[in-house]
Amino acid sequence: MVTPFTYSRTIRFRDTDAAGVVYFANVLAICHEAYEESLATSGIDLRSFFNNLSVAIPIIHASVNFLHPMFCGDRILVQLNTKHLDNSKFEIIYQVVAVTEQPIAKVVTRHICIDPNSRTRKELPDNVISWLRRWGD
Amino acid sequence: MVTPFTYSRTIRFRDTDAAGVVYFANVLAICHEAYEESLATSGIDLRSFFNNLSVAIPIIHASVNFLHPMFCGDRILVQLNTKHLDNSKFEIIYQVVAVTEQPIAKVVTRHICIDPNSRTRKELPDNVISWLRRWGD
Amino acid sequence: MVTPFTYSRTIRFRDTDAAGVVYFANVLAICHEAYEESLATSGIDLRSFFNNLSVAIPIIHASVNFLHPMFCGDRILVQLNTKHLDNSKFEIIYQVVAVTEQPIAKVVTRHICIDPNSRTRKELPDNVISWLRRWGD
Amino acid sequence: MVTPFTYSRTIRFRDTDAAGVVYFANVLAICHEAYEESLATSGIDLRSFFNNLSVAIPIIHASVNFLHPMFCGDRILVQLNTKHLDNSKFEIIYQVVAVTEQPIAKVVTRHICIDPNSRTRKELPDNVISWLRRWGD
Repeated sequence: MVTPFTYSRTIRFRDTDAAGVVYFANVLAICHEAYEESLATSGIDLRSFFNNLSVAIPIIHASVNFLHPMFCGDRILVQLNTKHLDNSKFEIIYQVVAVTEQPIAKVVTRHICIDPNSRTRKELPDNVISWLRRWGD
Repeated sequence: MVTPFTYSRTIRFRDTDAAGVVYFANVLAICHEAYEESLATSGIDLRSFFNNLSVAIPIIHASVNFLHPMFCGDRILVQLNTKHLDNSKFEIIYQVVAVTEQPIAKVVTRHICIDPNSRTRKELPDNVISWLRRWGD
Repeated sequence: MVTPFTYSRTIRFRDTDAAGVVYFANVLAICHEAYEESLATSGIDLRSFFNNLSVAIPIIHASVNFLHPMFCGDRILVQLNTKHLDNSKFEIIYQVVAVTEQPIAKVVTRHICIDPNSRTRKELPDNVISWLRRWGD
Repeated sequence: MVTPFTYSRTIRFRDTDAAGVVYFANVLAICHEAYEESLATSGIDLRSFFNNLSVAIPIIHASVNFLHPMFCGDRILVQLNTKHLDNSKFEIIYQVVAVTEQPIAKVVTRHICIDPNSRTRKELPDNVISWLRRWGD
């Protein structure tokens, strides 16, 4: 597998819930931050990427396996790899690990490129294909 | 004072943090829900209200006093009153109380009407003025 | 299938993101609200349920398929059914639909009962088994 | 004034709302992250700090003035200073600025030290007093 993009993150108080650990849905949000950071390092402007009148790339599927809880102040790493599925679809595979490399969670998100008005499929733009090549096999 | 608009809410697990109570900034978000609900009962379409190319009414100030903590499953009420400040500005005053009427928090938000492109002041639209009259003095 | 537990919800401004629709991870949070509400209607006290020193029931897996976007102000229904897997595990299946019955998302969460200190498996408590019987086959 | 503690942050997609900018209450959450980071750099363990059976330091007041909107991908700085009010109370003053130093928001939070069981006032612990001296006048 290609060397993953690595995103470093500290668990914040707002990420936690009354059980004392990170609220389950926030793990997906933390992985999305890694996705954003990897796009930015490929020179993609995030403001226009996520609010674009001609191209949108919504998430159509997500799954997560939780292996270990996270607490406020914990330092974690999100390791991201991409998988180009077809000319309008890709997947992102995230490994969330502690700085000790202990596995915390595994997350997959699947994305599809559409025209935001007609909501019909569209080919992935070139800058996304370059990003997919950089972090995928 | 005019009879307030009352919004009923149950505290959710996602509202809480690792201290076991509602995360402080979420109290403001809960009050904003009451604002949205009061607008909807005045016939205002929320989707276009909050994403409008010709009129935006951002919050320019907010303050909150916390009197009592809230726990997951608690039933609360948000009592909302409005105050028309000038032709482009208004305030909302929120009293957050338990169903037993115990005070929980007091919140104020101040809003200003602008053109979202030039970000210059603009007169409040008629439907907002009607809403202000309904819940304010 | 057993008649599902139905939870009614309005999409709030805080649920949305800069693409103008509900942020993907918030769909899971909305389904968790339905879970909480179904527990409460079975007489389970949420405050102690989610912060209990002797029994915890964390989510070990979640998956979601997104079929249709949601906008601020939309009224949705979450239809919840349970599946008792073994003496320490269960699944929840959620169908998120518009009030017009248009499908919006399908979500599954898997939960395991543990001792929160040793983090070893434990039998599900009686009140959870009663709740599973009420909403599952 | 004492040199502030400076926290650097990128605006994330989850911070935004359907108006295309950061959701108002999330500005407070971002400031709280700066507070957490400043505590951690003083050697305070965040996990036990925010979930402590003998000492809690809840926020009793917060206020915010919004000067400029923030968009997904924006790089911002939060400059934090403290003000020791009395033996159980302190304030934090936050200046949120763009990397160009353009002012974005001004936030104040007031905190009080209590016994979490009796909810009566208590003296601030020594490690908090050291932290207050480091970042306050």
